[in-house]
Amino acid sequence: MAGVLILGATGSIGQQSLEVLQNLKNRGYDLDLIGITAHKNRVLLEKQKERYRPRVAILTGQEAGPDQGIEYGSGALLQSIYRDDVDIVINGLVGISGLEPSLAAIESGKKLALANKESLVTGGPLINELLAKEGSGSLIPVDSEHSALYQLLQGHGKGDISSLILTASGGPFFFSSREEMEQITPEQALRHPTWAMGGKISIDSATMMNKALEVIEAYWLFGVDYDKIEVLVHPESIVHSLIRLEDGAVLGHMGIPDMKVPIQYALTWPRHEGGEFESLDLARVARLNFYQPRWADFPALELGYEAGRRGASMPVVLNGANEEAVTAFLQGRISFLEIASSVGGVMAAHDPYPLTDLQAVLEADKWARQKFEEEVS
Amino acid sequence: MAGVLILGATGSIGQQSLEVLQNLKNRGYDLDLIGITAHKNRVLLEKQKERYRPRVAILTGQEAGPDQGIEYGSGALLQSIYRDDVDIVINGLVGISGLEPSLAAIESGKKLALANKESLVTGGPLINELLAKEGSGSLIPVDSEHSALYQLLQGHGKGDISSLILTASGGPFFFSSREEMEQITPEQALRHPTWAMGGKISIDSATMMNKALEVIEAYWLFGVDYDKIEVLVHPESIVHSLIRLEDGAVLGHMGIPDMKVPIQYALTWPRHEGGEFESLDLARVARLNFYQPRWADFPALELGYEAGRRGASMPVVLNGANEEAVTAFLQGRISFLEIASSVGGVMAAHDPYPLTDLQAVLEADKWARQKFEEEVS
Repeated sequence: MAGVLILGATGSIGQQSLEVLQNLKNRGYDLDLIGITAHKNRVLLEKQKERYRPRVAILTGQEAGPDQGIEYGSGALLQSIYRDDVDIVINGLVGISGLEPSLAAIESGKKLALANKESLVTGGPLINELLAKEGSGSLIPVDSEHSALYQLLQGHGKGDISSLILTASGGPFFFSSREEMEQITPEQALRHPTWAMGGKISIDSATMMNKALEVIEAYWLFGVDYDKIEVLVHPESIVHSLIRLEDGAVLGHMGIPDMKVPIQYALTWPRHEGGEFESLDLARVARLNFYQPRWADFPALELGYEAGRRGASMPVVLNGANEEAVTAFLQGRISFLEIASSVGGVMAAHDPYPLTDLQAVLEADKWARQKFEEEVS
Repeated sequence: MAGVLILGATGSIGQQSLEVLQNLKNRGYDLDLIGITAHKNRVLLEKQKERYRPRVAILTGQEAGPDQGIEYGSGALLQSIYRDDVDIVINGLVGISGLEPSLAAIESGKKLALANKESLVTGGPLINELLAKEGSGSLIPVDSEHSALYQLLQGHGKGDISSLILTASGGPFFFSSREEMEQITPEQALRHPTWAMGGKISIDSATMMNKALEVIEAYWLFGVDYDKIEVLVHPESIVHSLIRLEDGAVLGHMGIPDMKVPIQYALTWPRHEGGEFESLDLARVARLNFYQPRWADFPALELGYEAGRRGASMPVVLNGANEEAVTAFLQGRISFLEIASSVGGVMAAHDPYPLTDLQAVLEADKWARQKFEEEVS
C-alpha cells in the first residue's frame, strides 16, 4: 500500500492525478489517497474531498476558516508531506511556492513526482544536494518531455548518451514572420496548437521560455552539460523527446499528447501500465515534421541556456522576471517581444550569487520581480 | 580479449564487420580477429587475410586447393566455430546454409551475432531450444530492425510491451499502381530506395517478403505472439523499428541507415560506442512519413504471418519457395506478382510437420524448392 499526497489537486495536473489514481486503484493497484491541497478553489476541493475521500484536505490560501474537515494554511501543507502514511508526493503546484514542498518531500524520504517546473529551475542545487543525502527520497519527473527522457534513459548507461534532445512544439508563432510577431496579442498567444494548458504556460510556450526552463530542468534532472542538451522543434508534439546515443542512433518517445501518461508512469515506475489511453497510430498521424529552433526570433530559448550556464541565482532571476513579464504582457503593459527582452534586461543587471538555502532562492526571486518593475515603469 | 570469427567475410555484412572490428581495435577495444570465411571469392578473401591477419581463413566453396594458409570446405568452417579462442561468431552467411553454423555457435557457448535471416526463419525452434540449455551461448541480432528492437527493449520488462512495430521502407513500388506492378522488371526491382543491398534481398524488399521473414525472426527473437508484431511502412528508413508500451506510448530507434551501427552494437553490447558514424539530424531530415502496409497488393507480408502462425515446417517452405521464386523472377521465368502467388501456391500444397532436427529443416527446404519447380514448369 502506497499513500499518495497531491499538492495542487484542483489544478490541471492535480485533477488528472486524481483520475489516474482512481484508474490505477480500479486496476488493482494498491494506492491510497492520503491528501489533497488547493490554494483558493474551495468549491472544487470540497467536491474532490467528497468524491475521492482523502484523509486530509488542505486550503493553503486561507490561514483559517470554517472546519468542515478542511485544514488551512501553507504550514498544514508542509506538515502533510511529513505524515508517515504518505509515500508519494505529486507536486502539481504552480510557481516558486512549489519549491519548499519539493525540498520537504525529498528530505522526508518520500518519492516526489514532480510537475512543478520552478522546483528544479530555481532550486536545482538544493534539490540535488538533498537527493544525494542518505535516507533521502527520490524524484521522478512528471512533465511530458522529462518523463520521456527518463523513460528512454532506462537501460542505457550515462556513458552511452551523447546528448538529450528536448522537443518543442514551437508554439503558435513558429511560422510567423518577425513583423507578425511584433503585433501578437495576448488572445493569440493563449492559443496553443497541441496542448490545452493554463495561461502562464501557454505564453511560455509561445515565447519558447517554456523550453528554456525545461533545458534547465533537464540539466538538474539528468546531470548533463548544457552543450549536451539540444532543442528540436516538432509542431505535432507526438515525439515527446529523444536521446542521442554515442553511435549516432537516436531513441525517441512518442505518444498522443496526454499528461495522464507521464503522471501514471510516475506512480507505476518502472512499469508501463495500461489505462484509458489512446494508443499512437503513426500511420494515422502520417507525418512528423522537425525544424531547427529560430534562435534569433525566440531569444527566450538562448536566455535559458545563458541562465543555466551562469548558474547560481541566475535561473531564479530568469524565472522570476519571466513570471512578471508574462503578467505584464497579459495586462497589455508590454508587447510580446518585450517579454524576452525585458527578462534579458533583468538578467543583465543581475550579479549571480550561490544558492545556499531556500532563503537565498526567494531573495533572488524577489529581486528579479522588483528589478522587472523598475525596468518596465 | 574476445576472439571474433566472421562467417561470410567477403559479403556485405562481412566486409563491414571487418571495418567495425578494426575501428573498435583502434579505439582500444580488446578484440582479436580469429578467422574469416568465404564461399567462393578467393581473391577478396586473400586480400582480407593479408590486411586483417586472421589466424585462419577458410574457403567453403572448395573441398581442397593450393594451401597458401587457406583451409577448405564447410567442415573447416564448422570446426573453426568450436575453436577455444573464438568468443563471438558473426554470421553473415546468406541462405539456409547459415543455420548449421548458428546452431554450432550457440551449442558451443559462443555469442552469436546473427545477420543470417534464414537461421531464425527456418530454424527458430531449434535455436530457441538450444539457447534455453545450460552452458549455451547467446544471440544478438545484427540486422537493422531487430537490433533496434533489441536496443529499445533494454530497460523495459516484457509485461510493459503491448507490441513490436517493424518498420518497412515499402520498397521501390510502394507508391506504384496495381497496373504498374504487373509490368515490374528485375532491373526496376533491384533498385532499393534507401539501403544498398544484394540482389536477393533487394527483390525481397520490393515484394515485402523481406519484412515477412523479419516478422518470423522477431517472433523467435523476442517471444511475442504474431498478433503483437505490427508492420509500419516508413519510406525514409530513418526509424528502424519501434516498441509500443502498455500505456500507449511508443519508443522508436532512429538513425542514418548504416549496417555498421548494429554490427558494432552486437560487439559492444550493452554499450553504445562512438565510431565513424553520421549522427542523425532530424531537423535536416525534416519529415518522417508513415503508412499502413498495402496488404492486398503486397501479399508476401500476409504469407509471412500465415507461415509463422502455422509454424512447424511452414516458414521453411515459405523461405525455400521464395528463394526459388526470386531466382525465377530474375531469370525472367515468372513475373513480379507471381513471386508471392507461387510461394503461396507451394505453401498451400504443404502439410507442415514438426522440426525435430536440422535434417527436418533441410528436407522441408528441399521439398519446397522441388514443389516450386513443379508448380512453375
